[in-house]
Formats: sequence, C-alpha cells, structure tokens
Amino acid sequence: MTHFADRLTNRINQLSNPTVVGLDPRLGSIPHFIREKAVAEFGKTTEAVAHAFLEFNKGIIDATADIVPAVKPQIAFYECYGHHGFLAYEETVKYAQQKGMIVIGDGKRNDIGSTAQAYAEGHLGLVDLFDTPTPMINADALTVTPYLGTDGIAPFTKVCDEQEKGIFVLVRTSNPSADEIQGQSVGDQLFDEYMATLVEGWGREVIGESGFSAVGAVIGATYPEEARILRNLMPNQIFLVPGYGAQGGGADDVKPCFYANGTGAIVNSSRGIIFAYEKAGKPGEAYAEAAREAALMMKENLGKLF
Amino acid sequence: MTHFADRLTNRINQLSNPTVVGLDPRLGSIPHFIREKAVAEFGKTTEAVAHAFLEFNKGIIDATADIVPAVKPQIAFYECYGHHGFLAYEETVKYAQQKGMIVIGDGKRNDIGSTAQAYAEGHLGLVDLFDTPTPMINADALTVTPYLGTDGIAPFTKVCDEQEKGIFVLVRTSNPSADEIQGQSVGDQLFDEYMATLVEGWGREVIGESGFSAVGAVIGATYPEEARILRNLMPNQIFLVPGYGAQGGGADDVKPCFYANGTGAIVNSSRGIIFAYEKAGKPGEAYAEAAREAALMMKENLGKLF
Repeated sequence: MTHFADRLTNRINQLSNPTVVGLDPRLGSIPHFIREKAVAEFGKTTEAVAHAFLEFNKGIIDATADIVPAVKPQIAFYECYGHHGFLAYEETVKYAQQKGMIVIGDGKRNDIGSTAQAYAEGHLGLVDLFDTPTPMINADALTVTPYLGTDGIAPFTKVCDEQEKGIFVLVRTSNPSADEIQGQSVGDQLFDEYMATLVEGWGREVIGESGFSAVGAVIGATYPEEARILRNLMPNQIFLVPGYGAQGGGADDVKPCFYANGTGAIVNSSRGIIFAYEKAGKPGEAYAEAAREAALMMKENLGKLF
Repeated sequence: MTHFADRLTNRINQLSNPTVVGLDPRLGSIPHFIREKAVAEFGKTTEAVAHAFLEFNKGIIDATADIVPAVKPQIAFYECYGHHGFLAYEETVKYAQQKGMIVIGDGKRNDIGSTAQAYAEGHLGLVDLFDTPTPMINADALTVTPYLGTDGIAPFTKVCDEQEKGIFVLVRTSNPSADEIQGQSVGDQLFDEYMATLVEGWGREVIGESGFSAVGAVIGATYPEEARILRNLMPNQIFLVPGYGAQGGGADDVKPCFYANGTGAIVNSSRGIIFAYEKAGKPGEAYAEAAREAALMMKENLGKLF
C-alpha cells in the first residue's frame, strides 16, 4: 500500500485529470431500462432500488475508470433506503476499487472520541469482528465535519496513518448559506480560515512523499477569492472541490484551489456527469456513454487552466 | 400523531423522568451468552454482530420502556458493521417504538440542500420508492451538525413539520476539545452562543403546544456555566444533554439545562446504563436487570434537582 495522498496524486498525474465523479444516484433520474429490470426482479422494494443504483453505478464506473481517478459516492442517497441502500454503497465502493478507482465516501461523519473511532474503523479501517480486526466498508477516504474539534478528528487521522487512508475535512462549503457560520469573524480571521489552521495542524503528522497530507480539505468552488487565502493557509492539503457545474462553479472558479503546476486539488462533478444523458436529451440506454463524454469535456476544461 | 416536542415532553411528564438511554452497543461489552448464541447461529460474521446487538437492545428496551421515555441509538456503532449493522439499527428503532419509546437517532448528519433532504427523508420522513412516498428508517428525531448553515437545516425542519418529527442540532458538545471551535469568540459572543441564536431562529416555525420546538439542541453536560447562558438564548429548545455519568457530568452539572419546573431537557446516559452489569460485577445474564436499576438510580438523582 501507499500513502493515500500519494496514491491520489499519482493517479491524477497518470490520467492528467484532477476530477472525481460524484456517484449520487436519485431514483427519479436512473434510466428507465435499469429501473424496470430491477422492479421486474424485486418488485417496488428497497432491494430493487439498491440493485438499480448498483447497476447504474457500474455503468458509470466502467465508462470512466480509464479517464477519471476517483469517485465520490454521497452516502445520504444510499442510506436513505435503509440497509439495502447501504449495501449498494458498500458494493459500489468495492466495484470502483476493483476497476482501479480511488473511492472517497462522502459521509460528513463527525462525533467525539470513541464514536468517531467507530466511524473511522467502519468506513476506513478495521472493526472488531469477534476479536478479529476485519476491514468493513473500506473506502479510501471519507469526508468529515469538524464541529467537535481535535477529539473528533484524531481517531480518523490515527486510522489514516495505520491504514494508508485519507479524510477531507469540511472547511468551506459551496452552498449559499455557508457564510452564516464559515464566514463569521473569529479574531482577525474568517471562521473558515481559522478552521484551515486547525486542519493544517491535524494533517501535519500524516504527510506523504508527494508533500500532501492524508488530511485534505473540502473547499467549495463558489468562493474563488476565499479559496486563494485557504490555499495559502493549507499548503499540504489536497482540496476536494464540490460545486463545479450544477452548483454554479466553473473552471476559473476552481483555479485558486490548485497550485500553479496543477497539483493540490481534485474537482467533483456529480449530476453534470452521471445524469449527462438527461441534459443531452439522449436515451437512458446511452447514459454511460454520455457520462464519459461529459467527463472528457470536464477534463478538457480543467486542462486548459494550466 | 402529535408534534414531536409535545410527544416527548408528555412522555417525560408521564414517567417523571427526563432520561434517554443511549443504545451504543460495543461488541466487546455485549454479554457472552448473547454473543455465543449469535455466533452459534451465524458464525463470526457481521450478521451475528447485528443479531447480537438487536437481542441486547431488546433486553434493555424491555427492561426500561415503562420507566424511560426515550432511547438514543448511536448510529456509528451499527453502521461500522456495514449493512447488517445498519439493519440492526433500523430494527432497534422499530422495536423501541413498538414498546412506546421515542427514538432519537444519533447520526449527527449534515449536508447541503438536496443531500440534507435525502438524510431527512430517509431518517425521519418518506422516500421515493418508485413514485410511492414510503417511510424508511422512521425514527422520531435525529441529531444534526450545523456546519453548513440554514441550507443544511431547512430540509430537516420541513420534514419535521410535515411528519411530526424532531431534530437536535449540535450547539455545545461534551468533549474536551469542544472549545477549539465552539468556544471561539464571534463578535461579542462565544461561537456556541452565536449558534444558539441560529438554532432558536430555525426552530421558530415548528413550535408545539408545549411551547417547545421540533428543533432542539445538543448541549453537553460538562459546561454548566455555558448551559445557563444557552438556556436563555434558546427558550423554546429542548436540550438533549450527553456527557452525564461516563463523561464526567453529574446531576448538578445538568441542572442549568432545565427550567426551574424541571422541563426543557432530556439527559442521556449510554454505558452507565446499558453496561451497568459490568461495573456492578454482575453476570452478563443480569444485564437487563442491572440496566433497569441504573436507570431508576439516574431517575432518582435527576428527580432530586427539582
């Protein structure tokens, strides 16, 4: 195994593509032919939803694994269908990894010490299975929300260190009301800048050969001015950048998240890639092909930045 | 159905007991006889863990449902065993509700708009099951982390309003490093006090006949001085108070979370109740009885406050 940040940066460099595809399935946007097949086999059940999600995701993964380094399944969309949904999440993680992709679970988990440890072990590390430490969900990285301070982060960095995994800590999110909290002044800094100094500290002990830490940061694409400041405050953090495309951010907006040499960030697109067939007015059967085209277009747009 | 805050306060009043039992199963502390039975049937698998957790929880619920108004399963401890663990969480929710208990899912979920909506619908509301809105996990309330501002909360309050459910927003947590974020100064307030003003605002549209809102607040038992200030800033919020017992908070520490008439808060104990048999040096077979005794002791201690 290799340090998470090194694995991620290596794969981004190999493919010359700092993109992550958000696997955020919504039943209403899954192509009819997939839904119908699942309902024919399992009825209108959560089991059918889980099978439809997994088949859909496999199509996206197969169509993009040779051009995109990573996927980011949003756990909410699986978990909301209960344990069958959760199984579809676990199977998606496994399948993407089999195809060589790095998997960032988007769970925004957070809690204090021993509970944070349970999340860290379950999502990234080993759990106690009747006295045998056993890998469980085994994603490569997880998004984490920092509301509880160091106690809530240390259990994750410990697992990252032991298991060559990563976390991305929410610092600046891409939504309109982010400023209510992240834009408040703490001393002479904005709150997100203060958070950035904490994140930089949390990541110091787990820096890889690439110079990047296993502790990355989530930095929304919709605040380019702020991204410039945060880039300086967190020199060793890989930025996971949501908000590109559907949420209004463009290639120019994400540029400040990168270093001038094109390293230091990975940009997410979800709907803009996985449901590209809808926007392009293509039949559902062409969804994977449409996703590949959209992913290539995004790669091209980001490539123009450097 | 009745408004969540009214249901919770009514049940607390009926039982004269502002206590919630934290259902936080850890495999190493589950009595041997339960573990052995599960392993005999399912081997050393996650399915066995799930069955052991559910049987353990049923024992606690059966032993306390007539004296304790609510349970708070910590989702991390289930989720870390993947989909089988998640099923044990769902079954625990159902079983506790069948026995008349109110269930507060401790998930500390958080995300932006449409993703927060998926969490809200999955945990508290209705999800789209092939065009039929269908209840899924269906807990009575969920803990939520407020890092993303109003966008991340509004989808939850909408579901609370429609489905008579509740949320408890993290304001002040009970862990040692909470001050790193929650104790920072924002203007002339501490950060948690500023958060309290946001939470008060979020809860204003969903106030029940009891005068309490469907939007409650998590207030750790380990900061009694701060709790006094927060009680004033959030007059309509029910406080969910962790940190009693194992984390160092005592009955006097939680007192400022309550109004003088004994309303306005519900205090959690997890290990101190569910694993009371270990501390009391009793055999595992007596775990449910030991939990009942510990719950009665806690009720008595809290009762002395008013």
